[in-house]
Amino acid sequence: MSESTATLDESRTEMTELLLPNDTNNLGRALGGAVLHWMDICGAIAAMRFSNRQCVTASMDHVDFISPIDLGEVAVMEAYVFNVGRTSVDVKVDVHAENPKTDELRKTTTSFLTFVALDDDGKPTPVPRLVCETDEEEELRAEAVAARADQLESVIERMEN
Amino acid sequence: MSESTATLDESRTEMTELLLPNDTNNLGRALGGAVLHWMDICGAIAAMRFSNRQCVTASMDHVDFISPIDLGEVAVMEAYVFNVGRTSVDVKVDVHAENPKTDELRKTTTSFLTFVALDDDGKPTPVPRLVCETDEEEELRAEAVAARADQLESVIERMEN
Amino acid sequence: MSESTATLDESRTEMTELLLPNDTNNLGRALGGAVLHWMDICGAIAAMRFSNRQCVTASMDHVDFISPIDLGEVAVMEAYVFNVGRTSVDVKVDVHAENPKTDELRKTTTSFLTFVALDDDGKPTPVPRLVCETDEEEELRAEAVAARADQLESVIERMEN
Amino acid sequence: MSESTATLDESRTEMTELLLPNDTNNLGRALGGAVLHWMDICGAIAAMRFSNRQCVTASMDHVDFISPIDLGEVAVMEAYVFNVGRTSVDVKVDVHAENPKTDELRKTTTSFLTFVALDDDGKPTPVPRLVCETDEEEELRAEAVAARADQLESVIERMEN
Amino acid sequence: MSESTATLDESRTEMTELLLPNDTNNLGRALGGAVLHWMDICGAIAAMRFSNRQCVTASMDHVDFISPIDLGEVAVMEAYVFNVGRTSVDVKVDVHAENPKTDELRKTTTSFLTFVALDDDGKPTPVPRLVCETDEEEELRAEAVAARADQLESVIERMEN
Amino acid sequence: MSESTATLDESRTEMTELLLPNDTNNLGRALGGAVLHWMDICGAIAAMRFSNRQCVTASMDHVDFISPIDLGEVAVMEAYVFNVGRTSVDVKVDVHAENPKTDELRKTTTSFLTFVALDDDGKPTPVPRLVCETDEEEELRAEAVAARADQLESVIERMEN
Repeated sequence: MSESTATLDESRTEMTELLLPNDTNNLGRALGGAVLHWMDICGAIAAMRFSNRQCVTASMDHVDFISPIDLGEVAVMEAYVFNVGRTSVDVKVDVHAENPKTDELRKTTTSFLTFVALDDDGKPTPVPRLVCETDEEEELRAEAVAARADQLESVIERMEN
Repeated sequence: MSESTATLDESRTEMTELLLPNDTNNLGRALGGAVLHWMDICGAIAAMRFSNRQCVTASMDHVDFISPIDLGEVAVMEAYVFNVGRTSVDVKVDVHAENPKTDELRKTTTSFLTFVALDDDGKPTPVPRLVCETDEEEELRAEAVAARADQLESVIERMEN
Repeated sequence: MSESTATLDESRTEMTELLLPNDTNNLGRALGGAVLHWMDICGAIAAMRFSNRQCVTASMDHVDFISPIDLGEVAVMEAYVFNVGRTSVDVKVDVHAENPKTDELRKTTTSFLTFVALDDDGKPTPVPRLVCETDEEEELRAEAVAARADQLESVIERMEN
Repeated sequence: MSESTATLDESRTEMTELLLPNDTNNLGRALGGAVLHWMDICGAIAAMRFSNRQCVTASMDHVDFISPIDLGEVAVMEAYVFNVGRTSVDVKVDVHAENPKTDELRKTTTSFLTFVALDDDGKPTPVPRLVCETDEEEELRAEAVAARADQLESVIERMEN
Repeated sequence: MSESTATLDESRTEMTELLLPNDTNNLGRALGGAVLHWMDICGAIAAMRFSNRQCVTASMDHVDFISPIDLGEVAVMEAYVFNVGRTSVDVKVDVHAENPKTDELRKTTTSFLTFVALDDDGKPTPVPRLVCETDEEEELRAEAVAARADQLESVIERMEN
Repeated sequence: MSESTATLDESRTEMTELLLPNDTNNLGRALGGAVLHWMDICGAIAAMRFSNRQCVTASMDHVDFISPIDLGEVAVMEAYVFNVGRTSVDVKVDVHAENPKTDELRKTTTSFLTFVALDDDGKPTPVPRLVCETDEEEELRAEAVAARADQLESVIERMEN
């Protein structure tokens, strides 16, 4: 019996958004919720590219907003699938703020979302097995697994203080 | 020296949103990102009502989407401040899906956001001390603290499997 | 033959909206139309919660904008059903502007909307009879009936001058 | 001392909107609130064209939704100033639903809005005197005055039953 | 065999939009893309009014942005059908910026869009023959044909330099 | 005197958008105007990344919509600067429709936009000289120049028939 596979590269997704007024608060900074919305969409596209299925968000890991994004700046979201379950895929999403006037690029946040693949009746359906054909893919996969564990570790530490 | 205080009740916020087409995916279900956006705004209003300051999102805890919200249904977000730091407040946000045709109310998700209060120069500024004047407030506070710990516990468990 | 009933409390709806740039005019004040839009949605949710039916707007009474809502402030809409016809419900909607930095709450407007309940074929369909089980419900009902009559009185007076 | 004047024609405004999904409810019909929002913007443009001032909405008369507007149809709003106070203008706004596939044009609603003109400090400021230079303008003015009185009459009658 | 016809006047469409914050860039000027979006919708309504069919955009000619539109100003789009193919119509769309405080009207751009009429299965379907019953219609038709040729000429010239 | 330079690679921009209901017409296909809006924003980001300046749209070349994008599909925009004037940059923007369920990628359109760089007073300001440091950049530059000429050629041909 052959099992379907897909590569990490097939899932890679880059989304670029110009910050518009309605994405900002009174200080002209990106609303956290606007960034979360983009992260979810970027992750969903990565999950759909990988599974060739409609995907819905099952969960999102802890999100730390490290630096703000200001009105007129650009938000760049990058996502890829780094782990799969039977009917679910785990996606790493990185967000950077970019000031196009200075080319400055600041890390805004990283998080990990899990999506469930659905068949045409809206029922969970198996996803392909993840394969990493290149060293770069293998590194990205390992990096995501490690970063997710690190982030959980740091959340636990903070909670204990 | 007197220290300013604010009550849990002062922070309580209820947001009700009718699901419109642009909030949904191809299956007519709420995009995860639309729900995250509402949670962030609802939490921010709770934080601002409590601190009387402009507040920005510092972090959002893990979010599990337990049940979907469908087109034409109503999303109900409820938030309150349950813990404070020197310049930050922790807010619990609950989301329910409500079918107005059946009055059915389904829990969609709960999460915990941290907001930082800013002064007029955009610098972090001290927030009031949280006081719970009624038994109900005290229970809500305790419930949030326990629920946050439980959720972290369950995230850790799942990660270890 | 038993007739279905619903209570005033079942219809009660609270909507909280953070004013975003696209909701404002050049002066940074809420567009009247943005407020009217929220009033209609808040009223429709109250009508649907009461009737357990899809509801469409049949009419809106006179609206006076008493005080503006500024960018960064919060609009709070509160609605409940206070009167019913055979296939229609009358809803009172109050709007307040809230400055989260000062906790100041200003009355923005009150109006009365009528919604028609529709069955699955889009035809008008009977609504439950309104019952007020508590004194508070009875007072809210009476208050709405009186306020609507007062408002019409005041519109007539102004028109005659 | 000369007093500034403006004509009814200078205020005339036509707005055409293609109904998009987010303007509709679950039945694919225009949300009442979407139509109210367009009426307010169309009226405000008429008021600004007349007064050459920033204008804010002071009030909106009773609105009856006579016929629905469906997804894919076009909403046509027409507005003109028909009466002025010292710092305010009264605007009549008509809305028609148009089915571009059949050229069918259905009256959706008519209402009357009052706008206040503001100077650069946001204070109410005098508006020009309304002049009707042509018979058509005079007829439109008279028609609006009569229609507003008729509508109030019919609201009173319904309220008394 | 009779052939259906429609007049240029039947297609005429006027759209008026108040510039809102999300339509502008960091300088408070209309985003080019917001104007292009309105031009497409205005042209599509003209095409549908003419053909009584759902229409989709096949192409848009070169667009020169001659003068900006600022926040708080009004964009006025005017469109009419000036030429037809078997299943397509050509529409001229003019855009003006209007400052309602000064009544100043500045030409922003003119372009020419081609739409294809679709039947209920989404297949291209014949459109009526264009007739100009009045001298004004004939002039508008001729003006559009000439302006389109002129614009192409000027694009060619610039490309050759 | 040294003259500032920037590379073609510095300008490269990829934007990915999930088609949402409000981006579509009655047939569930992307509105031409929604695609034009994304092309303009994607081009503007490329222009700003290259020039490190705020940029405004001066013109957009002819646009042919070769294949539709359907609801639930993904629009992928790719842009880069391929030519510069004293204060302006020319950007090539490609759009593809992607069906994430089949990985099918269809060319939707290509066009060429010109942006003007502005200084902090909103005046046109010199842009860097374009340099292509790699063979790939040089090929992309040549490809854009040739494609723009080809497209104009084909527009001229069609106009002459």
